[in-house]
Amino acid sequence: MKLLRYGEAGRERPGLIDKDGVIRDLSQHIADLGGETIDPKELDRLARIDPASLPVVTGNPRIGPCVHGTGKFICIGLNYSDHAAETGATVPPEPIIFMKASSAIVGPNDDVLIPRGSEKTDWEVELGVVIGRKAKYVSEADALDYVAGYCTAHDVSERAFQTERSGQWTKGKSCDTFGPIGPWLVTKDEVPDPQNLKMWLTVNGEKVQDGSTRTMVYGVRYLVSYLSQFMSLHPGDIISTGTPPGVGMGMKPPRYLKAGDVVELGIEDLGQQRQDVKADA
Amino acid sequence: MKLLRYGEAGRERPGLIDKDGVIRDLSQHIADLGGETIDPKELDRLARIDPASLPVVTGNPRIGPCVHGTGKFICIGLNYSDHAAETGATVPPEPIIFMKASSAIVGPNDDVLIPRGSEKTDWEVELGVVIGRKAKYVSEADALDYVAGYCTAHDVSERAFQTERSGQWTKGKSCDTFGPIGPWLVTKDEVPDPQNLKMWLTVNGEKVQDGSTRTMVYGVRYLVSYLSQFMSLHPGDIISTGTPPGVGMGMKPPRYLKAGDVVELGIEDLGQQRQDVKADA
Repeated sequence: MKLLRYGEAGRERPGLIDKDGVIRDLSQHIADLGGETIDPKELDRLARIDPASLPVVTGNPRIGPCVHGTGKFICIGLNYSDHAAETGATVPPEPIIFMKASSAIVGPNDDVLIPRGSEKTDWEVELGVVIGRKAKYVSEADALDYVAGYCTAHDVSERAFQTERSGQWTKGKSCDTFGPIGPWLVTKDEVPDPQNLKMWLTVNGEKVQDGSTRTMVYGVRYLVSYLSQFMSLHPGDIISTGTPPGVGMGMKPPRYLKAGDVVELGIEDLGQQRQDVKADA
Repeated sequence: MKLLRYGEAGRERPGLIDKDGVIRDLSQHIADLGGETIDPKELDRLARIDPASLPVVTGNPRIGPCVHGTGKFICIGLNYSDHAAETGATVPPEPIIFMKASSAIVGPNDDVLIPRGSEKTDWEVELGVVIGRKAKYVSEADALDYVAGYCTAHDVSERAFQTERSGQWTKGKSCDTFGPIGPWLVTKDEVPDPQNLKMWLTVNGEKVQDGSTRTMVYGVRYLVSYLSQFMSLHPGDIISTGTPPGVGMGMKPPRYLKAGDVVELGIEDLGQQRQDVKADA
């Protein structure tokens, strides 16, 4: 299933995309798409609903973040060997993990706001993994049992805040609107191999990232297992698994986003995002 | 007011401490103590209730985390000049900020669990600041308008996970049970000077931390304003403002927690915590 949330910010309703690409409303079956409703058993229940029986959503509603109430937005740093090379870093012996504030989450086509004082706002297309069941000390073999599905994620990053403003990356990763997720939560049955998905990002129509999850250093199974050794993962938590080459910081000279730019990005089978870049008020 | 949440984990009810130290139940007035109910206006409404009119809570219930539904648990690193010295670090030119997973939050007297594979679980008593109103780009002068109150916080830290396991401190800060908060959310009217509170921590009765928020480098007003330049702070968010000297990592030789230890900590006017340290199952 391709599940989604549509409607104005803070008042989204749950839906799914039928085989013709039409949004169907799910709110007679679940209150929202979030921790409580993306457990594998709940998803099985939803999968048994005939989409044709659901009300068609007309018009062209805003698409919200594909999951509600995310407790942790965990990101993996330098997880593509070629991206590590472009930033001048070496691949770490263990995954680098950092947190993005969950308050950074927005819909896939909402504006990205350049924070006051920013001069180095950068882009990163990433595979997002959405947790469906509480995971603690799980093995790599069992890891996917705890995954509800996948989404396109944009790990917007302010490089000066991240690396030039005293310690710890979270400062450059957590600004409002720095976490577009969606359009869809694609359940894992529709993604047979999360390690073989093409991914891309354009700025004003120019392709700057053109990669594949094949070159990920630490894959989805490993990451879910690894993270669960440090903390419980809860339903609705998101793991953003790192970005392939092509970020602005790695260009010569570096290139950053400015008001008026348009960023589009997508991952094979997981859908596309499009953001207008604006200055924060 | 000294507000609190009492009852079994996940089913806490809101209450307050009356002038005799007795817990009074608030659940006829608010559903829970969290983002929606700790807005200054809501707190004013609660303050007008005569505690004597509220039901007395009998017995000796468990005390839960003093606020529910925390979206962000933001911590400040090396924010006491004397603590920075003991760890061999210099005071940073700007606050170091990192995130603790909100899933680490537990009640003030719940067990602290040493994670599997841990050999360096350490303690840190900290002043917690609880946000009451959405704050973005706020000035230092106005910062306290956005604060609901204060609490005792324990920033339990695994030093090897934090610093020896590849980049970013969050890995050693986010383990389950690593964030006891409470017992009380003390509203700011009862804390006229948050920069002059004694704080202490004992391990098995031996005092190891004995400091004051007076030696904080970046104070509460500054931190709220500073953080709000990077991201919106939302009601229920917690800022843990750093620890004074006396952590295990700074001892010669270093000393860490082990199963069977008892940690007690407190901050003047904000109440005490007591944790049994156990090995995680």
